[in-house]
Amino acid sequence: MFELGDEFNSEFKISNDIYNGFVNIFNDKNPLHVDFDFAKNYGYSGIVMHGNILNGFVSHFIGEQLPIKNIVILSQNIKFNNPVYLNDHLQFNASVSEIYESVNVINFNFKFINQKKITVAKGKVQIKKLN
Amino acid sequence: MFELGDEFNSEFKISNDIYNGFVNIFNDKNPLHVDFDFAKNYGYSGIVMHGNILNGFVSHFIGEQLPIKNIVILSQNIKFNNPVYLNDHLQFNASVSEIYESVNVINFNFKFINQKKITVAKGKVQIKKLN
Repeated sequence: MFELGDEFNSEFKISNDIYNGFVNIFNDKNPLHVDFDFAKNYGYSGIVMHGNILNGFVSHFIGEQLPIKNIVILSQNIKFNNPVYLNDHLQFNASVSEIYESVNVINFNFKFINQKKITVAKGKVQIKKLN
Repeated sequence: MFELGDEFNSEFKISNDIYNGFVNIFNDKNPLHVDFDFAKNYGYSGIVMHGNILNGFVSHFIGEQLPIKNIVILSQNIKFNNPVYLNDHLQFNASVSEIYESVNVINFNFKFINQKKITVAKGKVQIKKLN
């Protein structure tokens, strides 16, 4: 069903709804995320989006964009290479990097690239197909 | 400011608001997360919560529960050991596992334990103090 190197591409925009929704749900109002002057003081060009918004997009990818539904995430990691700002358009690319057939486990490498072609985050997610 | 072994404890409840909010923001309606019969068919006792809700709690921990605010997450990983269900009460424990003073980087190990004392997830988060 999956083969090594299989690729998946999609696009995520950090809209106001997503940003505000994340802040409301998880109540992370660190000034870097909500205070323009604070963020600017530390060299950012705007309030910095929560990295874990990107992990929410990974959830969408696994839950909605794969050809099968009977899967769970076993583990996940992400490195935040560059800041993400409100209204950024992120290209998401994932590819199958390892397959462990005997245990129905599949690994994906993924990356998020912004509209300036800067890689803002990279990671891995490991899923298991349920029987 | 941080010392090796420093511990932080808090509690997170997977409320309806958090669950519904997450589904609405990230539009991950994988049947495991929304269809009771589907989840039961695969041996779960209820709809399974999105693992990335726990990553949202990690965001809250880093952004809101540490003694300093001028920090960013550099990287993060998590293993989902056991399913999390709606209304679960999760104990969150984090401890400082590594400090790299010359670059202002601090690593935390964390875990989430449910009301039945089962460890549902474990991970690491690496932060950097901004200058």
